[in-house]
Amino acid sequence: MNYSNLDKAKAYKALLASEKISLKKILSADRIKNSNVKVGGGLTYNYAAMPVDDKIISTLQSLADEQEVLDKYKALLSGEVMNTGEKRLVLHQLTRGNCLGAKVEADGEDKDEFYKSQLERIRVFAQKVRNGEIKGSTGKAFDTVCQIGIGGSDLGPRALYLALTGYCSGKGTKQLKAEFISNVDPDDAAAVIDRLNAETTLFVLVSKSGTTLETLTNQELVTKSLKGVDPAKHLVAVTSKTSPLAGSSSVLDSFYIDDYIGGRYSSTSAVGGVILSLALGFDTFKELLDGAHEADMLALEKDIRKNPSLLDASIGLYLRNILGYPATAILPYSQALSRFPAHLQQLDMESNGKHVNRFGEKVDYVTGPIIFGEPGTNGQHSFYQLLHQGTDIVPLQFIGFKENQRGKDIVIEGSTSQTKLNANLSAQIVAFALGKSDENPNKEFDGERCSSLLSADQLTPKALGALLAHYENKVMFQGLLWNLNSFDQEGVQLGKILAKKVLKGCEGDEVLKAYADILI
Amino acid sequence: MNYSNLDKAKAYKALLASEKISLKKILSADRIKNSNVKVGGGLTYNYAAMPVDDKIISTLQSLADEQEVLDKYKALLSGEVMNTGEKRLVLHQLTRGNCLGAKVEADGEDKDEFYKSQLERIRVFAQKVRNGEIKGSTGKAFDTVCQIGIGGSDLGPRALYLALTGYCSGKGTKQLKAEFISNVDPDDAAAVIDRLNAETTLFVLVSKSGTTLETLTNQELVTKSLKGVDPAKHLVAVTSKTSPLAGSSSVLDSFYIDDYIGGRYSSTSAVGGVILSLALGFDTFKELLDGAHEADMLALEKDIRKNPSLLDASIGLYLRNILGYPATAILPYSQALSRFPAHLQQLDMESNGKHVNRFGEKVDYVTGPIIFGEPGTNGQHSFYQLLHQGTDIVPLQFIGFKENQRGKDIVIEGSTSQTKLNANLSAQIVAFALGKSDENPNKEFDGERCSSLLSADQLTPKALGALLAHYENKVMFQGLLWNLNSFDQEGVQLGKILAKKVLKGCEGDEVLKAYADILI
Repeated sequence: MNYSNLDKAKAYKALLASEKISLKKILSADRIKNSNVKVGGGLTYNYAAMPVDDKIISTLQSLADEQEVLDKYKALLSGEVMNTGEKRLVLHQLTRGNCLGAKVEADGEDKDEFYKSQLERIRVFAQKVRNGEIKGSTGKAFDTVCQIGIGGSDLGPRALYLALTGYCSGKGTKQLKAEFISNVDPDDAAAVIDRLNAETTLFVLVSKSGTTLETLTNQELVTKSLKGVDPAKHLVAVTSKTSPLAGSSSVLDSFYIDDYIGGRYSSTSAVGGVILSLALGFDTFKELLDGAHEADMLALEKDIRKNPSLLDASIGLYLRNILGYPATAILPYSQALSRFPAHLQQLDMESNGKHVNRFGEKVDYVTGPIIFGEPGTNGQHSFYQLLHQGTDIVPLQFIGFKENQRGKDIVIEGSTSQTKLNANLSAQIVAFALGKSDENPNKEFDGERCSSLLSADQLTPKALGALLAHYENKVMFQGLLWNLNSFDQEGVQLGKILAKKVLKGCEGDEVLKAYADILI
Repeated sequence: MNYSNLDKAKAYKALLASEKISLKKILSADRIKNSNVKVGGGLTYNYAAMPVDDKIISTLQSLADEQEVLDKYKALLSGEVMNTGEKRLVLHQLTRGNCLGAKVEADGEDKDEFYKSQLERIRVFAQKVRNGEIKGSTGKAFDTVCQIGIGGSDLGPRALYLALTGYCSGKGTKQLKAEFISNVDPDDAAAVIDRLNAETTLFVLVSKSGTTLETLTNQELVTKSLKGVDPAKHLVAVTSKTSPLAGSSSVLDSFYIDDYIGGRYSSTSAVGGVILSLALGFDTFKELLDGAHEADMLALEKDIRKNPSLLDASIGLYLRNILGYPATAILPYSQALSRFPAHLQQLDMESNGKHVNRFGEKVDYVTGPIIFGEPGTNGQHSFYQLLHQGTDIVPLQFIGFKENQRGKDIVIEGSTSQTKLNANLSAQIVAFALGKSDENPNKEFDGERCSSLLSADQLTPKALGALLAHYENKVMFQGLLWNLNSFDQEGVQLGKILAKKVLKGCEGDEVLKAYADILI
């Protein structure tokens, strides 16, 4: 396969030479109606307000073809070593519980079977906890689950739980309350533990290696907090088979992941599966997986106009490398997605915030953008000022839903709150794209501020799964277009090494010591 | 006074011609020790890892002098019409309850006395609610307060409450639980109302005009949720004196703000004061005000090396306009500050995300940067990858504290979690600045990634007040250096107008209708 840098591609040079598109000239009702791509799970991606015309999209198709991104995606699915830095397979799509390609053998086992078997164990375990068959050590049923994990073991599962708890309330699904401790800051743990009842809380300790200092701290924390109960009956582990936690007598049960699931891609593995199945039921989690699988399937489509994650990735690359925009804002019009931008921030920035290609050679073009965002409900009364009238252009990704989750709404002056919410969302897209002239420059809006829209009837588990996988696949495709390894994270290592040095007294490093003296 | 654009200033031209500084060359233990400025409230600003030497700082001093920013700050304090767009005074510093300059007369009253009188009314009211003198309509004491407000009425007060609830727990201060509904999304309101007990909840409805559609919706929501109690006994208003809510029989009491307090600057007015005093006690709120006042006083210092908000503002301008960095990340190593970056995002981006100067003329230089951030505890396992090894440089602002708030910590392998947290923070600053060479480019860190550090012994109410005011004053000084009006927000208007149009059926606007058809 041809792994070459973006700036070697002919189509890239054609893009650099392409005529820039004015949204004011092209945005029309017809264009909006004709710019929809199905994402899976009932979600639709609309790119009408993106500054790309048919010609540019065709060139983006050529670029994807030249970079052979579809073949590379298939290679990934069939178990090639795509994480070249760490020499690992990349198998998170397999954790949806639906095989997408050839059978993958590794570590002496069929990986599809491995993930499926873990899924089945999660199903059985969650059912037993939820129906009271498995109880705490004092005989009380569990009513709370508390995940202890950091980075990807925290952001993704937390974002997904918050996204679906309202949906489950609306449906009347039985719920266990979920809490999350992301640790290191002792106040975070103390605050959560303060509001837990030890007798009715089941902890989920997530640690791949089971040997890190943070994990020891976590275990100790849990043990200390569980007064009057047997900790081993209140703790399950999500870990690798070779970890000391695996099958240890200090835990009630262990669920397994492996080295082929990066933290930021682990939400659909046991890392997200255990807590979501316990809190919201296995059926809810399974629907999420099905939605993710639908998005994974659509990502196999060669035609960029029918492949939403490839199209989104390619337009994003155009905005970044051709138009030079340094950031992208994620703006969900849904309070349920309040932590989803933080998850995408990790997913995208940790995957593609790289200055070397997959062979470790420096690249001569910009890669991953800054990702940030907040629910639009509040944001439009806040930082949208800069987005509308600031001196830089920030591409926007809106997310919206026709219906609310909880089924509780009120009509005031002829419209529901949900309708008002979506009237605002529609209005913002148009305001950003088309602007408004005014004789007072302070009230003038230049427009030409591009956005896309991901929408569905409702934020269901299936829609959420598709949304999650859409972004995972978008990030993967962008990494392939840029010729990066999107699956390692060497950039987080140096800080860890230096932190250890500080804890050992700085070892004569005067600069480090001067900062430590301020803080410790 | 001389209100002229940045690019007219001699010092600006000198900055453009200045030699760029290498952090690897200048960062030393001595520099770290000699780069501290007191911020107030026990906070210190350290700029050792910023790419500025004595010469550049002197030029930044000249720029501040040329732009007469100190005189303009004094003019603001003495009641000049600094919000030129809306022709309003800008008086949020007066809401700290400590007069800083000349007496300000407006609307036929002494404004200092006005804010002080509201503060006194808040003190008395909060005391009566907290000691049970004022009860709900069924005779039960209030144990929960719920703020209903949007934008600045939500982000700032919410961030401050979250920042101090752990501190109050650590001190054993009596607390009422605080909840926040930011509205429009019906699921947000439904989720909060679901967990409230009507009999023991006091609502705080924040709306300056008291006449907007959102306010009507809010009132209706509260009334509907308060089954079995008298709504008028469970609702107070924070509003303007001329609003229909003021002194209405539909509310238990009203606390007043006025047009001179912008939403994003309102945290120290009744908008933040009522809920914080009810939830955490008036004394806690008063300490926060005292910390803010200390920062306001330090902002009066002419010497940039002793004026932390002016220095921070000027260095920020250097990073933005001279070095061309488009964004700044806010990275608190404190879970208590989890929503503080979202507040700063509004404060900064809504204030200085402008393309016209204070006279409404387009400017030829970039203004406010993108502001984003998450607690570093999780962030360093997440998006720090891009910050370390991405192709763009993002300036960083770290925030850290020696001690935790809740007094609950554990020692593992010889160190507390708080020490580990701060070892990580120290390590990150050095890793970003100095990097590390490696024969494997994937493990190489270029360094030269600048950061500053705001630190204190503990996140106390006083330190938090100083932190809040530091950023308010930083934003004000940057606006003055850029010759902007940082106090209006015309950029949020167009969306509102178009949203109304959608609710009226789009009035023949086909583009708007095509988007509304997707979403409604």
